[in-house]
Amino acid sequence: MAKIILSINAGSSSVKISVYSAEQNCTPHQLAETQISGLTAPPPQLDYARGGETIYKSKVVDSEISSQDDAFKELLDTLINDEQLPEIKSKSDIAIATHRIVHGGDYETHTKITDATYHHLEELNDLAPLHNTKSLEIVRSCVNLLPETTNVAHFDTQFHATLPPHIFTYPIDPVIAKSNRLRKYGFHGISYAFVLRAAAEKLGKKVEETNIIALHLGSGASACAIKQGKSWDTSMGLTPLAGLPGATRSGSVDPSLVFHYASDVGKLSPGSTKDLHISRAEEILNKEAGWRALTGTTNFGAIAGEEEDEQKKMAFDLFVDRICGFVGSYYVSLKGQVDALVFAGGIGEKSSRLRKEVTTQAACLGFEVDDELNNKGPADTVTDVSKEGSKHKTLVCLTDEQFEMARGCAEDPELW
Amino acid sequence: MAKIILSINAGSSSVKISVYSAEQNCTPHQLAETQISGLTAPPPQLDYARGGETIYKSKVVDSEISSQDDAFKELLDTLINDEQLPEIKSKSDIAIATHRIVHGGDYETHTKITDATYHHLEELNDLAPLHNTKSLEIVRSCVNLLPETTNVAHFDTQFHATLPPHIFTYPIDPVIAKSNRLRKYGFHGISYAFVLRAAAEKLGKKVEETNIIALHLGSGASACAIKQGKSWDTSMGLTPLAGLPGATRSGSVDPSLVFHYASDVGKLSPGSTKDLHISRAEEILNKEAGWRALTGTTNFGAIAGEEEDEQKKMAFDLFVDRICGFVGSYYVSLKGQVDALVFAGGIGEKSSRLRKEVTTQAACLGFEVDDELNNKGPADTVTDVSKEGSKHKTLVCLTDEQFEMARGCAEDPELW
Repeated sequence: MAKIILSINAGSSSVKISVYSAEQNCTPHQLAETQISGLTAPPPQLDYARGGETIYKSKVVDSEISSQDDAFKELLDTLINDEQLPEIKSKSDIAIATHRIVHGGDYETHTKITDATYHHLEELNDLAPLHNTKSLEIVRSCVNLLPETTNVAHFDTQFHATLPPHIFTYPIDPVIAKSNRLRKYGFHGISYAFVLRAAAEKLGKKVEETNIIALHLGSGASACAIKQGKSWDTSMGLTPLAGLPGATRSGSVDPSLVFHYASDVGKLSPGSTKDLHISRAEEILNKEAGWRALTGTTNFGAIAGEEEDEQKKMAFDLFVDRICGFVGSYYVSLKGQVDALVFAGGIGEKSSRLRKEVTTQAACLGFEVDDELNNKGPADTVTDVSKEGSKHKTLVCLTDEQFEMARGCAEDPELW
Repeated sequence: MAKIILSINAGSSSVKISVYSAEQNCTPHQLAETQISGLTAPPPQLDYARGGETIYKSKVVDSEISSQDDAFKELLDTLINDEQLPEIKSKSDIAIATHRIVHGGDYETHTKITDATYHHLEELNDLAPLHNTKSLEIVRSCVNLLPETTNVAHFDTQFHATLPPHIFTYPIDPVIAKSNRLRKYGFHGISYAFVLRAAAEKLGKKVEETNIIALHLGSGASACAIKQGKSWDTSMGLTPLAGLPGATRSGSVDPSLVFHYASDVGKLSPGSTKDLHISRAEEILNKEAGWRALTGTTNFGAIAGEEEDEQKKMAFDLFVDRICGFVGSYYVSLKGQVDALVFAGGIGEKSSRLRKEVTTQAACLGFEVDDELNNKGPADTVTDVSKEGSKHKTLVCLTDEQFEMARGCAEDPELW
């Protein structure tokens, strides 16, 4: 029997829900998708599409909606009140709600949310206050609002549970590392799981025989070396701060830099709340750095599009350099056994110039794009943009975290 | 006319002096070398060799010698009192004293130390209190003890003055970056200058046409991409903390890690002194991490030599992985135009196992060692250990920072 699954993805200023109808072990079928964005830049706006048809586009909604939790309730009402979505007539029609949680600590798979797991997730919040707090608010709402629904957490970290010790270990006191749970976790794993499966299918290979270098490049950006279908290394670390720069994030910098940036960086930031304790340092490096600090915009498209502006050009070159650093590093880590370099995420999908520059720089490894295919951009879930005869393939993947979470639920016997 | 040059290299627990006789624009000729080591692990010990002959080996010296400054005075007396070193009969015979200074900020070349430069160096001390303080103590002594001697500062950063902006820039607020002088500086540059020149000679290439990936692997470790004879990228950053792990140094970690390691990491460490202000965080990451934290020893030889011990094996694999990451990264950054991979520094010279593992991992780029040559180790200043027919060469270089500083002085018309 088909079940209705909501895949819920709370970002820093938006909440997105995709609605699926799914049967066990079958590909989930998307019925609708809706989101409220602009929570930190009011007024918030609603998008809603059902069966591929746009119902609302950037519709301004009640500006009293200011939290992720408010937005979630509004989206739920939108779905229930839509008479042309007969699959959800009332809350009790929603069998499963699955939530994207950024930091999953030592969870190696998705998990049903019970009192015990919820408590464990609250503990993990200390490791990732900036990232988990908002998702947990929605989980709490869901448990209260939808008592008949099974809640499932999907973690951005779980795909990276396969990292080997010599890669996930930091060269610090192992006793403190263990007690404080300090290791490389890696993030964007829900996306990488989707990218891996989709790329393997495109390449005609079994997932467990597929080796790729995957790049999830969005307002947060990371790279992942996937070896025989498993995460082998990834650029984010204990938190999503490490690795590549992002819209407001510095990425890796000298770990002593922040102590030379401002005084008292170890103190709680004035922006901390009862539930959200964050040091001034983490705020500077996560919120006051990256593209916005360098160029004044968080929109990488505007950076990639302006080759005349010296600072934007420098920021673009900086990003290409840092990405190529990981491409080279992971190429060696995979001993050159690489089926494809895969671009995903908003920037990875949209910026043909970025793909061109990265592959030109990395041409010595055997990556080359066909200019026409690359400029045309993605035509399908996975598009091959490689130059004919290039040693390794270059792909563009339209990643879909909500679908990946619904798929995870459809394949979990415990949920059926 | 020949001048006597002292090249002075103050490490964290040792002071080393090499004595050269030099004529302008000629290769300096070493007369003697001497060092006191074990300053932080008393009793301190003296080594002294003159004309290739060992005079003292690990001779225990007065344990009242506890500072770099004490050690310098003792070494100076050793040289002056040695009747068989007629070139230095008195202090006034020392024409030039050149000092290795770790952090040179924006200095692009070595510089004569005057009141103004000394003041500027004191300002820079804020950027590198852990590294510059001890050298500056010796500079002060030298100015006082040797009033007729010209003092010259050679900086570990100066070789990296050629880094391009998209590589030296951190993605942080550019106004604060500028005012607080926050950028990638890079270190080990005196060594890299020596390595570059020696490797170019071995390769039969002009320095300005030589592209190498150089690894200086010692108790501090770094990598450098050298493009057409100039530093193009390097793994250390604002301070020597970034990049590869070292004896007691974490290398690059998630910049938020230290805030999860201990509380109050932004406060001054109890180890701070009037002249040395250092945060607890910087102390943890520079002094309480690295090989010592992971394995209990700072001796990488003992780590590389014990393949049975699980933790030592993990630490070894971790180092190989991090080194290979930079090799891959710089290979792409140099677009595959690489004349050689060059191993230098204590570990780079001595650990044939490390060289073997790194080149095996990076074989996909075309690096391969000949097992017999590699196991034999360095036979000369530069030894080619490449496998016959490998795409790129692999070299081992006996780097010599003191010689490089003396050479810099011999070639500087202002000093003659």
